[in-house]
Amino acid sequence: MGSTTGPKANGGIPKTMKALQYSKPKDFAVVEIDVPSIGEEDVLVKIEACGVCGTDLHYHKGEFMAKYPLIPGHEAVGTVVAVGRNVKSIAVGQRIAADPMEPCRNCFYCIRGQTLLCENMTGYGGNVPGGFAEYCRYPARHVTAIGDLPALEAVLIEPAACATHGIERMAPKVGSTVLLFGCGPTGMLLAQLLKLNGTANLTIASKPGPKLDLAKRLNLADSFIAISDTNAKEDLDALLKSNPHGFDIVVEATGAPSVLEQSIFYVRKGGTLVVYGVYDDAAKIAWPPMRIWTYEITILSSFCSTLKFPVVMEYVRTKKIDFRGIVTKTYRIEEWAECLEALEKQRFVKAAIVFD
Amino acid sequence: MGSTTGPKANGGIPKTMKALQYSKPKDFAVVEIDVPSIGEEDVLVKIEACGVCGTDLHYHKGEFMAKYPLIPGHEAVGTVVAVGRNVKSIAVGQRIAADPMEPCRNCFYCIRGQTLLCENMTGYGGNVPGGFAEYCRYPARHVTAIGDLPALEAVLIEPAACATHGIERMAPKVGSTVLLFGCGPTGMLLAQLLKLNGTANLTIASKPGPKLDLAKRLNLADSFIAISDTNAKEDLDALLKSNPHGFDIVVEATGAPSVLEQSIFYVRKGGTLVVYGVYDDAAKIAWPPMRIWTYEITILSSFCSTLKFPVVMEYVRTKKIDFRGIVTKTYRIEEWAECLEALEKQRFVKAAIVFD
Amino acid sequence: MGSTTGPKANGGIPKTMKALQYSKPKDFAVVEIDVPSIGEEDVLVKIEACGVCGTDLHYHKGEFMAKYPLIPGHEAVGTVVAVGRNVKSIAVGQRIAADPMEPCRNCFYCIRGQTLLCENMTGYGGNVPGGFAEYCRYPARHVTAIGDLPALEAVLIEPAACATHGIERMAPKVGSTVLLFGCGPTGMLLAQLLKLNGTANLTIASKPGPKLDLAKRLNLADSFIAISDTNAKEDLDALLKSNPHGFDIVVEATGAPSVLEQSIFYVRKGGTLVVYGVYDDAAKIAWPPMRIWTYEITILSSFCSTLKFPVVMEYVRTKKIDFRGIVTKTYRIEEWAECLEALEKQRFVKAAIVFD
Amino acid sequence: MGSTTGPKANGGIPKTMKALQYSKPKDFAVVEIDVPSIGEEDVLVKIEACGVCGTDLHYHKGEFMAKYPLIPGHEAVGTVVAVGRNVKSIAVGQRIAADPMEPCRNCFYCIRGQTLLCENMTGYGGNVPGGFAEYCRYPARHVTAIGDLPALEAVLIEPAACATHGIERMAPKVGSTVLLFGCGPTGMLLAQLLKLNGTANLTIASKPGPKLDLAKRLNLADSFIAISDTNAKEDLDALLKSNPHGFDIVVEATGAPSVLEQSIFYVRKGGTLVVYGVYDDAAKIAWPPMRIWTYEITILSSFCSTLKFPVVMEYVRTKKIDFRGIVTKTYRIEEWAECLEALEKQRFVKAAIVFD
Repeated sequence: MGSTTGPKANGGIPKTMKALQYSKPKDFAVVEIDVPSIGEEDVLVKIEACGVCGTDLHYHKGEFMAKYPLIPGHEAVGTVVAVGRNVKSIAVGQRIAADPMEPCRNCFYCIRGQTLLCENMTGYGGNVPGGFAEYCRYPARHVTAIGDLPALEAVLIEPAACATHGIERMAPKVGSTVLLFGCGPTGMLLAQLLKLNGTANLTIASKPGPKLDLAKRLNLADSFIAISDTNAKEDLDALLKSNPHGFDIVVEATGAPSVLEQSIFYVRKGGTLVVYGVYDDAAKIAWPPMRIWTYEITILSSFCSTLKFPVVMEYVRTKKIDFRGIVTKTYRIEEWAECLEALEKQRFVKAAIVFD
Repeated sequence: MGSTTGPKANGGIPKTMKALQYSKPKDFAVVEIDVPSIGEEDVLVKIEACGVCGTDLHYHKGEFMAKYPLIPGHEAVGTVVAVGRNVKSIAVGQRIAADPMEPCRNCFYCIRGQTLLCENMTGYGGNVPGGFAEYCRYPARHVTAIGDLPALEAVLIEPAACATHGIERMAPKVGSTVLLFGCGPTGMLLAQLLKLNGTANLTIASKPGPKLDLAKRLNLADSFIAISDTNAKEDLDALLKSNPHGFDIVVEATGAPSVLEQSIFYVRKGGTLVVYGVYDDAAKIAWPPMRIWTYEITILSSFCSTLKFPVVMEYVRTKKIDFRGIVTKTYRIEEWAECLEALEKQRFVKAAIVFD
Repeated sequence: MGSTTGPKANGGIPKTMKALQYSKPKDFAVVEIDVPSIGEEDVLVKIEACGVCGTDLHYHKGEFMAKYPLIPGHEAVGTVVAVGRNVKSIAVGQRIAADPMEPCRNCFYCIRGQTLLCENMTGYGGNVPGGFAEYCRYPARHVTAIGDLPALEAVLIEPAACATHGIERMAPKVGSTVLLFGCGPTGMLLAQLLKLNGTANLTIASKPGPKLDLAKRLNLADSFIAISDTNAKEDLDALLKSNPHGFDIVVEATGAPSVLEQSIFYVRKGGTLVVYGVYDDAAKIAWPPMRIWTYEITILSSFCSTLKFPVVMEYVRTKKIDFRGIVTKTYRIEEWAECLEALEKQRFVKAAIVFD
Repeated sequence: MGSTTGPKANGGIPKTMKALQYSKPKDFAVVEIDVPSIGEEDVLVKIEACGVCGTDLHYHKGEFMAKYPLIPGHEAVGTVVAVGRNVKSIAVGQRIAADPMEPCRNCFYCIRGQTLLCENMTGYGGNVPGGFAEYCRYPARHVTAIGDLPALEAVLIEPAACATHGIERMAPKVGSTVLLFGCGPTGMLLAQLLKLNGTANLTIASKPGPKLDLAKRLNLADSFIAISDTNAKEDLDALLKSNPHGFDIVVEATGAPSVLEQSIFYVRKGGTLVVYGVYDDAAKIAWPPMRIWTYEITILSSFCSTLKFPVVMEYVRTKKIDFRGIVTKTYRIEEWAECLEALEKQRFVKAAIVFD
């Protein structure tokens, strides 16, 4: 790859940039490093904002696909400031959101067209540099023009793409009734997409707090059930009593194994249980096979996404997905330690790293 | 079947009733006939209102499943006034909408579970007495409680059930773009259901007039294209120009063969053309097979429905389908000649027959 | 229902018959009782043979839908000896197999078209009299003509119908690789149907013994793995080593919870685990949700069948399913105690009760 | 790209090769040109054989994606003689078959994951050099190892991949009945794949002649109907008479518009008509929309394939697809004029170009 940087004095791209970089798990610093060079089919993006995701906690610990040194950030939004010479799909000056998952095209799954299952996935912000930096390189085909969508809304395109894939996996039938456990940012996107994809009746069940309050304010479901820590059993019993046949689809999006284990008892005969949370690696869930059998329950999951940004943008263009109000807090990379702590303690609904 | 009628003086069910009856094609009269008796698994319904459908014009001419003498009316809403002794699912006094299609259970298709394709379908208002009468008998399993939904909304449950089946046939992918030709009552229901089932971007193309005006007022699509009679080619060219890749799904719901023939050129590669109108028996459509092949187009249709009332009610209960404003005119059975003429000349969006 | 029996002297139907009847769980006897009378839409069948199924052990214990007094037997084959007056689909003298599952048509699931999930299922040989008797009544629509198919083959139509539904649930993709744990009679039918429905490469894994020997002799799979009790871990490790990507579909058809728990580790990314065995009511299976999530595994089950006899017969007519050799033992109802014991101890591959 | 050729004296790759090259439509010659150089992710293949396909006639005339100068041949089989430095999936010396369709990854469809619909498809033997030459370059990911499968069988992997995609489009239900019009090489592959994918009863209808004779000899269907030119109507009437409900799936694979027009009347209610032939660009088919509507017919097509070679190989490895006997004639590139004429006049079932 040849360098694309030019003299800053000319109003161009600087030679170096600030980035949040991990040298190894838990060991991060804001560093000054070279702005990435780009190849013929790449773009260079000046980052405006990059969403903070629960997965970033896993990268912090060295889990998932993490490879060091690592610049995290996989929900990046910014402006194209340089393009490789073969790039025709996007131009300098356009604002974009970047799809962080790049399949290898050569593995067992890729040659069968199952790119999401790629065995050698390149992940921007996972195993190659991501969006917690002033600039980031992406293949041109991985960036999607977003027009003037505000950056703090556009950072939700990536999680919405994952939720889109989740909806494709669930394939809700026309007129479905759905119970969604959990209403974090992902739950809020799932809720919106469910209502746009067959769901006639959506119930959100969540512990009380700011997320549930926001979900109510955004009118994301047909009914809301607060499951209090002190009264969980009675709250859940009441839910089943008012829905004696259960639900066509039950989505577990809290990540709590105990909730996942109970979820199956809310699934209607012939219905579907969706494993959508991120659980501890060591967790195990004990389900009775006779329930699965006699109820003909389908259990399925949804693992991130590839190639779903165009789908999300169709909804964005017609204002059917509403990203407003979900990012409730912003940080600068210099505040990463503070952000991490707030993330762990769930002090915000959704945060984003922002740059000037 | 034993009689269920009682002396009128007791505030009960009268012995006779008024009905609109055809003795043969085109030959109809308001007659005084016996109130139907009911069997052990039946209900007797006092009709409040019954929608008038384009299909009633075909029955008028003796087409479709028509069998005489015939009381038409297959979009009936009313109150249960008597129930057979085995009936537990519904009670006297409940307001209901009636599913008019009763499969035989014994034919080639029924024993394969494809009840909609039944070769010996019983159709209430088609080949057995329907809802253009003060009372009508139905199997209890064919009536669905509607609570206090106004009758002039509830008559749309049956066409919505057909539209529901249509959506199931189309199976819109998440984020679909859809072009709908025509916005009669059925088009308006399809439009609502499409937006609830995957459609990210819906365009309605229709000739100008009260139906298109109403569709706009009800905000049924993301964009509306008026196709004028005098300027059709240019209007359609403009539509294609602004949607150069065509649409994932194109629904032909006007019943005009010329529109159906053109529709295929608005279908995106890999997309679907839906034959949803009712065309003349003799009509033929000439499509180029190379277009079908190189574009991998799927052409499909949707033929009424069975067992879809519960699905519609899920949407009704959560107010996701809005039936208000679509029935724009009511008639009494004594005004059938006038209603027929207005139906033929499309003087109303949707009409219903009403009773005291 | 009117009586259909006539004087035996006339070569007709006797007034009484022998039947194996339970008065309560575990309490059975061969009794002489009235031949069933039939209704207008029924047929009376003189039973030739009726398959013995693992489920009969559950009925023996009073499990599932069992209701007493009970004549078990849900895999019946025989000759129609009388028909109700409305019956046109079948005639006296025709040989038939009987579909034992009759949905109520009125429950929550039936009115949504999901008859297999019926909440009030009538089961011939489960909660109404079945085929372990000289005669049995069935609705005409529940019997399928079998021509001259030998009775000891035809008793497998019912389990093949269940397997057919299983295949529909699995929906194998074109070119699937499948691992089938277990090769009892049901496994043998699944194996045949899998190879007719997308499976390019089928592996049967089973403990050594007569069932596996028969499966090999019948050439039911592309490869066979004997999992010995003493060397199970190594046998299974070798299986995974020779199939490093796992299988598109893994079917657990042994009913052993320990096998089911391990099965998930043989499922390829994006693949499907099928819960096909019958497990103890109290059994629980502990699966790691992170495996389900990162592998995007789908877990599903298949619960008997409705309306699948015509599908099976399509395969039978073209000799694509081969039932020969699977029933390896026959008993008379007087030998039920002996048959039960052999069933429990798995002394035969598949048995059938036979009559003169 | 750097050169990979070496001195012939060393037993290596020559500098030049013979190829059949078109300078413009219909203007072809055997030329001596440079052996292709390869890039880092490519392989160089010494061609053993390359199937001749009806599409080659279209390329001959300059139709489809043809771009000149053109070396046709898109069903190539050979031995890898050089690999680019990044290639790990295949090694020098391995025999392979080459998938000729390479999507652009950047167009409207590619970024939505619909690679088969690519707007800028690279086609080896279509718009870049193909297999009618001694050597051909391919991306490594486009070649699939074939072991010792004879070349005249392996040339059928490409058409089998297209047929595989066709089967995916048809998605035959378990136990389908299928009518296949035409039994050329593609029909023979479809027939085999249909029987492996749900089809319980397959009828092949074709004009009499060597193709139908071969199909019978290969036992490719459950029944065979010869449709004579002189007696077509009666032959077809007899077919309908013996299949009064029609077929679940009717596949038109003759390319004759008159057959396609009639095909729809053999489709069962709820069934599918598959447009699988290649028709004249100008052809139009006139179908009655009321038949499509009242029968709920689905019409669909299948356009070549991408990424299906691994699926075909699963069937090849277990010997479920049998390619033997279908290639009935071979030619050298010097005999192309003769081959073209025989192709046009259908003098062989399937031909292949072969090299030393």
